[in-house]
Amino acid sequence: MAGTNSLENEIIHEDGPAIILIGAQLGENIGKAVRAMYNFGLTDLRLVSPRDGWPNPDAVPAAAGADIVLDKAQVYETTAEAIADLNYVYATTARRRDMIKTVITPHKCASLMRSHCGGGQKFGLLFGPEKAGLKNDDVALCDAIVSVPLNPAFASINLAQAVILMSYEWFQTGSEQPDQYTPQLETRPASSDDLQKLFDHMETELTEAGYFRHDQRRSIMKRNLRNIFKRADLTHEEVSTLRGVIKALATGGGPGWLAEKAELAKKQGK
Amino acid sequence: MAGTNSLENEIIHEDGPAIILIGAQLGENIGKAVRAMYNFGLTDLRLVSPRDGWPNPDAVPAAAGADIVLDKAQVYETTAEAIADLNYVYATTARRRDMIKTVITPHKCASLMRSHCGGGQKFGLLFGPEKAGLKNDDVALCDAIVSVPLNPAFASINLAQAVILMSYEWFQTGSEQPDQYTPQLETRPASSDDLQKLFDHMETELTEAGYFRHDQRRSIMKRNLRNIFKRADLTHEEVSTLRGVIKALATGGGPGWLAEKAELAKKQGK
Repeated sequence: MAGTNSLENEIIHEDGPAIILIGAQLGENIGKAVRAMYNFGLTDLRLVSPRDGWPNPDAVPAAAGADIVLDKAQVYETTAEAIADLNYVYATTARRRDMIKTVITPHKCASLMRSHCGGGQKFGLLFGPEKAGLKNDDVALCDAIVSVPLNPAFASINLAQAVILMSYEWFQTGSEQPDQYTPQLETRPASSDDLQKLFDHMETELTEAGYFRHDQRRSIMKRNLRNIFKRADLTHEEVSTLRGVIKALATGGGPGWLAEKAELAKKQGK
Repeated sequence: MAGTNSLENEIIHEDGPAIILIGAQLGENIGKAVRAMYNFGLTDLRLVSPRDGWPNPDAVPAAAGADIVLDKAQVYETTAEAIADLNYVYATTARRRDMIKTVITPHKCASLMRSHCGGGQKFGLLFGPEKAGLKNDDVALCDAIVSVPLNPAFASINLAQAVILMSYEWFQTGSEQPDQYTPQLETRPASSDDLQKLFDHMETELTEAGYFRHDQRRSIMKRNLRNIFKRADLTHEEVSTLRGVIKALATGGGPGWLAEKAELAKKQGK
């Protein structure tokens, strides 16, 4: 991935956005935001006039070990200073603003940043104080407003939650994890031959047991059963497991099982 | 939107997934998860053996007013009971499991649920206790494992953060909010004629001021300027503002401005 350092499994997005917290009130909230940032590989924290100064010991436990972000954090007096080196800045806000400024979703914001990434551009996301949110003068400095689609009757998201949603979307747009996969561990998918043998085995035993009583439904019943097991996406080992299950059910606790037990004991030299 | 009740701006997704918290430890964390759920219109909370019993007064302040979710919450003794009426259940987990079970992203999970929505199917998302996460026996009850792509060196997300990411993705896949729009408020976009008059005005004043000194670059300079103002996506009113700006700059503090001031005073009958 461009601009990503992989060191001991660590993914740090050096081209990721700066998280700019303006007038944050509680150290604990800053710490939680820091944890959320680092969950998604972001490390550039900028604090504009944090209410209780910086460093703030209350932030440390809430950061849950994301010290790299706490240590690098920069403090500024004004928003203008905090964003001076950035090319694109986005304002996160839940309130509607009487401003003619483009409104985008978090996902769109992440895509826009990714699409500008190549040329070494730098990005920032502005977050206002816990209660009041961003001032209009700060919003006016931004390229667009980011608005999270949510329940309009319950639209108050706390600061760390807003930070995690934005950080999450940034990470997702650059993630190489497939959106769906099935780990095979030490095994391998069943071959068609494995499945055919399973079907043959099952159908033989079912015929034996009188399951296919109605001749005219025999084909359709076989097809239904085959579809069930085909859909289960079985591994080679799971086919063996199922054949063991069929064998156990077919022989039951009866003479078959006893004979097998005797054979097993003989093999083990008992 | 199918299955959505809009009552006093409230969006409740009755076909949305149940959030199932297994063995949750702190009431405060349950409350935060409740707030996150309701931010994204989810109201079906199911608690399996919450450590401190239920109701838990510690959950109330953290839920920040999402009483509808707290009041409806159901308590179960076992995971099997909590999911009995659900058709599809997904396990959220950060740890890798030695299981051959499909792993999907939160976004894929939301899409899968949406695609199954039509037939009245019911869904659930399982979350384990704060520290230990889900047990393998609970994971085995699920249709797939949801894994959030994140920084592998710092992969611990807290419970409420995990709940908000899943709730957020559910809401996004059903949201009708466009991913980008520009509110026009009381105004309207500038017409081509507005812009042409702006360009003419600006170019006339610039010619007057001797800005287009180099005849051979005149056309290219005009085009560059037009591109700047075209790109700004101006409204009708903003074109007027800019023409005022050009006029002010062109007349400066000199005789033009003095003459205008005199004329204005005359108009106002002073």
